[in-house]
Amino acid sequence: MNPPLPRLTSCSAVLTHEVEVLDEFGRRKTMSIPAERPLTVFVDKRELVTLMTLGVAPELLVLGYLRNQRLVADVGEIESITVDWEVGAAAVRTRAGIADIEAKTAQRTVTTGCGQGTVFGALMADVEAVQLPGAQSARLSQAALYEMLDQMRRQDSVYKKAGSVHGCALFRGAELLVHREDVGRHNAIDNIAGWMWMNGVTGGDKCFYTTGRLTSEMVMKSAQMGVPIIVSRNGITQMGHALASQLGLTLIGRAKNRHFICYSGFERFDSKPEPARETVELGG
Amino acid sequence: MNPPLPRLTSCSAVLTHEVEVLDEFGRRKTMSIPAERPLTVFVDKRELVTLMTLGVAPELLVLGYLRNQRLVADVGEIESITVDWEVGAAAVRTRAGIADIEAKTAQRTVTTGCGQGTVFGALMADVEAVQLPGAQSARLSQAALYEMLDQMRRQDSVYKKAGSVHGCALFRGAELLVHREDVGRHNAIDNIAGWMWMNGVTGGDKCFYTTGRLTSEMVMKSAQMGVPIIVSRNGITQMGHALASQLGLTLIGRAKNRHFICYSGFERFDSKPEPARETVELGG
Repeated sequence: MNPPLPRLTSCSAVLTHEVEVLDEFGRRKTMSIPAERPLTVFVDKRELVTLMTLGVAPELLVLGYLRNQRLVADVGEIESITVDWEVGAAAVRTRAGIADIEAKTAQRTVTTGCGQGTVFGALMADVEAVQLPGAQSARLSQAALYEMLDQMRRQDSVYKKAGSVHGCALFRGAELLVHREDVGRHNAIDNIAGWMWMNGVTGGDKCFYTTGRLTSEMVMKSAQMGVPIIVSRNGITQMGHALASQLGLTLIGRAKNRHFICYSGFERFDSKPEPARETVELGG
Repeated sequence: MNPPLPRLTSCSAVLTHEVEVLDEFGRRKTMSIPAERPLTVFVDKRELVTLMTLGVAPELLVLGYLRNQRLVADVGEIESITVDWEVGAAAVRTRAGIADIEAKTAQRTVTTGCGQGTVFGALMADVEAVQLPGAQSARLSQAALYEMLDQMRRQDSVYKKAGSVHGCALFRGAELLVHREDVGRHNAIDNIAGWMWMNGVTGGDKCFYTTGRLTSEMVMKSAQMGVPIIVSRNGITQMGHALASQLGLTLIGRAKNRHFICYSGFERFDSKPEPARETVELGG
């Protein structure tokens, strides 16, 4: 019998904040900026890390963080996650402790993305262990890609109101399952990782959309969740490209309106070419 | 007598990389993407961290990283930095060791920016110690801001060729002193921090331009370097705003062409308003 799902609080928080600004016309006015708050994670009363977050579904963020840092292998290992914004803390209680937590959090790799990301442990060493579904069963068509981009364009968001956040969404074909925003794009994908665990959703027939770049860290997180396709409105880095090529993961970048570049995993993509016309292409 | 400057190797590396892609017209073609390589930093033979980097001036990146993580208080503490790309390592030799290196690197704060940034130590606890020059001596005019933006627009860059990198530049008024790009924007500012130390350049009369968001980590790094003004083509986060307001640091975001929003430190900015016209404003 599987252990029950973790008990989670369901904390909410104000997501935007008004500030007074000065513009190029010399006008003072108020504008909305995204909220950002520290959340210190304690695992069995031991301090693990402080995450800076917008504040959407913080319990799922913490759960997904533990999952994507591979500190926890199964959702059943967690008994409860209790967030209290007044003290900025998330208290995680496990059923049987986390084995080797000292060793697992000892090594630091400052990966890139836009900032200097933290991945505890030798993430890259386990690339060989990742098994994604074959190209026959996990595919994306050009039409579904366009529908996905159109949905993201129409999606209500903190970004539209206040800018300066990253978004991540999980799709099944052209069907949007969940959309999350955070000040950091890694928080947004971690939040979805937590959501997938709580809802028993697997990754094999899914696709991620992200506003962030296609970096090695994004590719690795997606692969760990079993999601074989990532679409981004942004570009790619060399390590992201190398890792995706090795894993057979499909990366589509610079995706906006009816434009995109497929960088890897062409075999999962059903191309339906646009009529040719004269174009000027941008780099990478 | 001051100790001599550190001896540095001057390693170069290929900055872009060609990959085969597929576009919306079904065409296979080659495009350039930015390079990205791991650089493991050893301090007195002890492994500290692995940085993922584009590869520009890696010795200055390492020096600036040590400076901005406040592991080293003065450039004279470093005897040499030797980078070897064949093994992806930077060997730092100090003159007298780094006191309390274990304690200084023990605490983790996963800040945001776009990724999950690493700042060792309780950065925020030292905000009170930062003293920026007064608003009378460190100012920026609207005309100098426009000139700065125009120079950045015309600047040759990896970004123009291959996309997907962040840039940071140091200005004195409208004079561009140094421009650095990296896969992560924190690497770019760290690289400039190293350059400033090697060239004996102080921050009080300078201004940073960055392509990244105005986050708390950017504000703190800039403040530590004594640079009281940051201009970004991107937006702002709440912690960045709060910290800058506390420090009296001027933040100007969404800066492009003749548009910008000054979010904090209005007293350092000499406004010369554009003629009023009807506009539609975007969020934060």
